[in-house]
Amino acid sequence: MEQPKDKERSLVSKVMDGLVTGIVEDKYGGILPPQDVLSKDFDVSRTVMREALSMLLARDMLDVRPKVGTRVRPMRDWRMIDEDVVDWRFRAKPDPQFMRDVLEFRMLIEPRAAGQAAERANAAEIAGIREAFEAFRSLQAGEAGYDEADERLHARIVHASGNQFYQQMSAIIVGALRLVRQQVAAHEGAHDRLLELHGRIVSAIEQRDARAAESASRELIDMTTEAPAGVALEARAHG
Amino acid sequence: MEQPKDKERSLVSKVMDGLVTGIVEDKYGGILPPQDVLSKDFDVSRTVMREALSMLLARDMLDVRPKVGTRVRPMRDWRMIDEDVVDWRFRAKPDPQFMRDVLEFRMLIEPRAAGQAAERANAAEIAGIREAFEAFRSLQAGEAGYDEADERLHARIVHASGNQFYQQMSAIIVGALRLVRQQVAAHEGAHDRLLELHGRIVSAIEQRDARAAESASRELIDMTTEAPAGVALEARAHG
Repeated sequence: MEQPKDKERSLVSKVMDGLVTGIVEDKYGGILPPQDVLSKDFDVSRTVMREALSMLLARDMLDVRPKVGTRVRPMRDWRMIDEDVVDWRFRAKPDPQFMRDVLEFRMLIEPRAAGQAAERANAAEIAGIREAFEAFRSLQAGEAGYDEADERLHARIVHASGNQFYQQMSAIIVGALRLVRQQVAAHEGAHDRLLELHGRIVSAIEQRDARAAESASRELIDMTTEAPAGVALEARAHG
Repeated sequence: MEQPKDKERSLVSKVMDGLVTGIVEDKYGGILPPQDVLSKDFDVSRTVMREALSMLLARDMLDVRPKVGTRVRPMRDWRMIDEDVVDWRFRAKPDPQFMRDVLEFRMLIEPRAAGQAAERANAAEIAGIREAFEAFRSLQAGEAGYDEADERLHARIVHASGNQFYQQMSAIIVGALRLVRQQVAAHEGAHDRLLELHGRIVSAIEQRDARAAESASRELIDMTTEAPAGVALEARAHG
């Protein structure tokens, strides 16, 4: 594939790198200078500067506030995960190895995140988790909003871990959740059992019991991976 | 920030999305049609198509082979981690919370990866791990190539876990390793102790002893986070 725009692209990369260097060395003090000032400083066209800034914007490294200007976002928000690629990976028909890997990964991260949420969540985060659980509890599987409530609950627990790496992995956790959803629903009495396990995680977090939160989370994931789920997954992966 | 190129950008996104849909539905069978054919199919300019393809190329989703064309890479290679952002995060002066989070994350992933390497590594992977260890052992801290040998060893172990999510997190593990390096070197007898612990991980993998690999890996990370490292880290993070 010929790349006639290669030269421009490498210029954009260079400018991006220069901007980031200035940011991490705290040269701009939180608010970037206007675009035309930056273009002059870097001695590049406004188009190149705009391109470089929009690459950083897309990575949640900057945000634009009316009357304030282009603000540097806190570093913990900078997106290390490319959520487009995560979405695309989950959109493909999962092969058995992908299933194994994503379930392993979820099993490693999510119980630990639940345990740390029990240790670290602040009052607002705990209230948000309880609220998401009550919304989930008020719905039946298949009803509008049920899946979203489930995902919101899991995402809030991971977020309350306070660990920015776990937080960034949320998209993978939610992807894993979607992948096993149909299989889980096929379990007899799945809804009641799901409610009970989610409820135990939420109560453990409220009671600051890290060990209980971690083990309830582990049981929940175990439930979603055991037969008939396992069988169905296998069939689906090969199908 | 005004975006006069917003329209073109959203067109590129749309084309990207269409290409990915075709790829995950296996429409192209592994090799993409030539660019001008694709531009006609999507009814967009060659510039827009080139831009969309180069975004996928940058994410390791495609590669270009002379005489073969643009090949779709195996999905496990698609980059979910934006390594630029990871590099930038590690280039900034680490604040105490970043240190805590990255060490927690490393402590969760790396021992598990070592354990799975013991279970799953194939002969070539085990030989590669042994070779990286011998290279590491033959050098003294501070000598040219020492840091690289250390990083290669860790990266190979993570890779041999076979789990594509852990593999993708390699850049974070290596970043964490660099972050504690100076502090580790400050330990009395650090080199000998490091060699011993690395050696135990490598032997455990060779002997397919997952539990031993996991616990040696955990000891190694513990060593790198305990005093004087802890103290020095604290000082550096606030400095």
